[in-house]
Amino acid sequence: MLLQLKQAVWEANLDLPKYGLVTFTWGNVSGIDREQGLVVIKPSGVPYEELKPEDLVVVDLEGNIVEGKLRPSSDTPTHLVLYKAFPQIGGIVHTHSPWATSWAQAGKGIPALGTTHADYFYGEVPCTRAMTEAEIQGAYELETGNVIVETFRGRDPLQVPGVLVHSHAPFNWGKDPHQAVHNAVVLEEVAKIGYHTIALNTHVPSMDQTLLDRHFLRKHGANAYYGQKQ
Amino acid sequence: MLLQLKQAVWEANLDLPKYGLVTFTWGNVSGIDREQGLVVIKPSGVPYEELKPEDLVVVDLEGNIVEGKLRPSSDTPTHLVLYKAFPQIGGIVHTHSPWATSWAQAGKGIPALGTTHADYFYGEVPCTRAMTEAEIQGAYELETGNVIVETFRGRDPLQVPGVLVHSHAPFNWGKDPHQAVHNAVVLEEVAKIGYHTIALNTHVPSMDQTLLDRHFLRKHGANAYYGQKQ
Amino acid sequence: MLLQLKQAVWEANLDLPKYGLVTFTWGNVSGIDREQGLVVIKPSGVPYEELKPEDLVVVDLEGNIVEGKLRPSSDTPTHLVLYKAFPQIGGIVHTHSPWATSWAQAGKGIPALGTTHADYFYGEVPCTRAMTEAEIQGAYELETGNVIVETFRGRDPLQVPGVLVHSHAPFNWGKDPHQAVHNAVVLEEVAKIGYHTIALNTHVPSMDQTLLDRHFLRKHGANAYYGQKQ
Amino acid sequence: MLLQLKQAVWEANLDLPKYGLVTFTWGNVSGIDREQGLVVIKPSGVPYEELKPEDLVVVDLEGNIVEGKLRPSSDTPTHLVLYKAFPQIGGIVHTHSPWATSWAQAGKGIPALGTTHADYFYGEVPCTRAMTEAEIQGAYELETGNVIVETFRGRDPLQVPGVLVHSHAPFNWGKDPHQAVHNAVVLEEVAKIGYHTIALNTHVPSMDQTLLDRHFLRKHGANAYYGQKQ
Repeated sequence: MLLQLKQAVWEANLDLPKYGLVTFTWGNVSGIDREQGLVVIKPSGVPYEELKPEDLVVVDLEGNIVEGKLRPSSDTPTHLVLYKAFPQIGGIVHTHSPWATSWAQAGKGIPALGTTHADYFYGEVPCTRAMTEAEIQGAYELETGNVIVETFRGRDPLQVPGVLVHSHAPFNWGKDPHQAVHNAVVLEEVAKIGYHTIALNTHVPSMDQTLLDRHFLRKHGANAYYGQKQ
Repeated sequence: MLLQLKQAVWEANLDLPKYGLVTFTWGNVSGIDREQGLVVIKPSGVPYEELKPEDLVVVDLEGNIVEGKLRPSSDTPTHLVLYKAFPQIGGIVHTHSPWATSWAQAGKGIPALGTTHADYFYGEVPCTRAMTEAEIQGAYELETGNVIVETFRGRDPLQVPGVLVHSHAPFNWGKDPHQAVHNAVVLEEVAKIGYHTIALNTHVPSMDQTLLDRHFLRKHGANAYYGQKQ
Repeated sequence: MLLQLKQAVWEANLDLPKYGLVTFTWGNVSGIDREQGLVVIKPSGVPYEELKPEDLVVVDLEGNIVEGKLRPSSDTPTHLVLYKAFPQIGGIVHTHSPWATSWAQAGKGIPALGTTHADYFYGEVPCTRAMTEAEIQGAYELETGNVIVETFRGRDPLQVPGVLVHSHAPFNWGKDPHQAVHNAVVLEEVAKIGYHTIALNTHVPSMDQTLLDRHFLRKHGANAYYGQKQ
Repeated sequence: MLLQLKQAVWEANLDLPKYGLVTFTWGNVSGIDREQGLVVIKPSGVPYEELKPEDLVVVDLEGNIVEGKLRPSSDTPTHLVLYKAFPQIGGIVHTHSPWATSWAQAGKGIPALGTTHADYFYGEVPCTRAMTEAEIQGAYELETGNVIVETFRGRDPLQVPGVLVHSHAPFNWGKDPHQAVHNAVVLEEVAKIGYHTIALNTHVPSMDQTLLDRHFLRKHGANAYYGQKQ
């Protein structure tokens, strides 16, 4: 069942330690089969070096376990809210990667300060508002998804494929699990570079809009001209 | 004698260089057998790559060497004070891991600034007061233990399984040696993330108490729902 | 065709991940055969671990593809402008190495603050002015080359073999592709050290001119006395 | 000739890349045979991975080459001044390790801020005064040694086994080449921790003198009790 998707989600989970995005088990990747409405996600608390493709858990969009002997990630309800709200996306990743988490803890979005950022994120990577007491005490992981969706109201999630959850850490997504992790690596890099940029120049303004357009559209959309034709 | 505990203490010591917590021999792990009242601890100044399980030293709670040809860690009296004062704990680790040590040298506790911290430490990781001249010139390592115990008066040491000793470095503990080292890794990570958070937002307040409760209790206690049932 | 140059350009490209200068495919190296007026450059978007010497693209100085099945780097027009304006150079490298990129995003040149810098760069590594809207919307990559050339008007590009492009990232060059990458490694190192120097001493002045002269000329020119006679 | 010393100097040079203290060939270690008055030192500009014990150069204390086909390190005159002025030392190392170099470029000594520092350096690691124009234009490397010696007037160089040369980088020493490199590793670590300490607490005072005494003397001198008896 969903063998290809499981393989992709498994590889994307293993990429988390490979790219230095996780300490211990602090991250999880999922992928969705849109036709069947089924999500494949990492089981909770299982170390990456022990993880096998058959350990992955299959859930439907209401969170019912369809296949798998282990509990799914405790963040599963967040993933499901995002899949429902953002039909364009096919993979999601959550980590506590340290540079992005520093911005999340500071309660600040990462401004677009240069072309590295612009090549992947079409403007600031936003930070959500702080969650309310009711949201935290209620269905917390589901409400985490809701506050992300609220943050992206009126925006295309594939133009800014990531977010910082206030006092928490980043979520990224993409058209598939592999691309979601790719975007998480980039987010960590722009979080680091952005931090040092601001230290060097406290009042640095966001980058020129024309330059932002040029770089984002050089890599995305109909007129992209980076890489090889496919 | 104590073969299982020695194996556990030996593995936990080897985890120190593996997780990048130590330079040279700047760290030591111990574990206790509560029934026998015996502590297994690293010998002083022996490089991790040469350390064998049989090199470990067994001492009683008064510091008498019960087994072993080598001198125990010079920090042994600190460990013993903690084992006596904190009956809940089964393993202790001391390192000079650089991020936590920076906070210790600054004489500041690490505030709870996000969920990474809240998942392991139920509030600020405190920094002890500076030790007095008499304490330093007296039974220094024993007094180091005493000042830690003083810092935790009225607190549960398993809810905040670590401390910064003023002008010195961190100690961590846990239910066993493995968990002590696990907590030391997390402390180093939250020390790093906390440092960068404050640089991005100088007056950032401590995290919301409700969020702190939610995350700590998600992983600890009767209602924990992270990981697999055991 | 150009087998030796291809080998050199291929090796220099592989040095980018080896020295930690690149994330994913964010960097490219080229080399020139001055007699034939031909440039060998990395193809766009190809991962270094898959790159073979025969994948490299040969272009003439007008950007016409002379050999190769793949598209050349999207930064090729920048490289060509530099080869035409700087006849002394034989290799060029562009990366988004994080420390140098932080200075570029801050819009600041890297001042000469010590002998590490002076051994390779005879004064500040300049940052270009911000590009105009017309330049960005026009032949952007070619105009990137032009703004670099403008920055070096009246200077010898081999005395300061690198530049920061405003809101973007560094370019480095040298007498051949290997030396260009060597200079990129040094730039990243002085960008890092310079950042921390300024944090320790906000108003630190540029280094003594006599010391700058001594160190640069110890390694460069007729009276150099570093290394072995060749 | 001097086979044992050559082996020791060779191993100590290879430790420089192993401990991450050098980029390219930016470092050199020497050792002295006090009876014969001969110094073994790294040849200039030779990569560590190509260095063989027989490549090392033997010079007398006046800098005459006694054995070896290659040029000795361009920093040889600095080493010789130190061996003559500090009869207690048996090995010297110079690197541009990035954290220590940041302090040198800032023109600031590294204050003793905690026990990690106190275990090895009995007080501040000083920064020399800036060198004069005449010193730089004259016998520069020899004058570099002289300004270090001036900085240590009235101090025991084995109590503070290292120095920062203003606008340049660190030198370390020890009773032999191995210990010199050991001290260089520690210097880099305390330079890093000290940097972050000051960022967390701008006006942090130097550590308590009693604590400094306790830790330094715990590891050094007749009453040391760290490590195993030898």
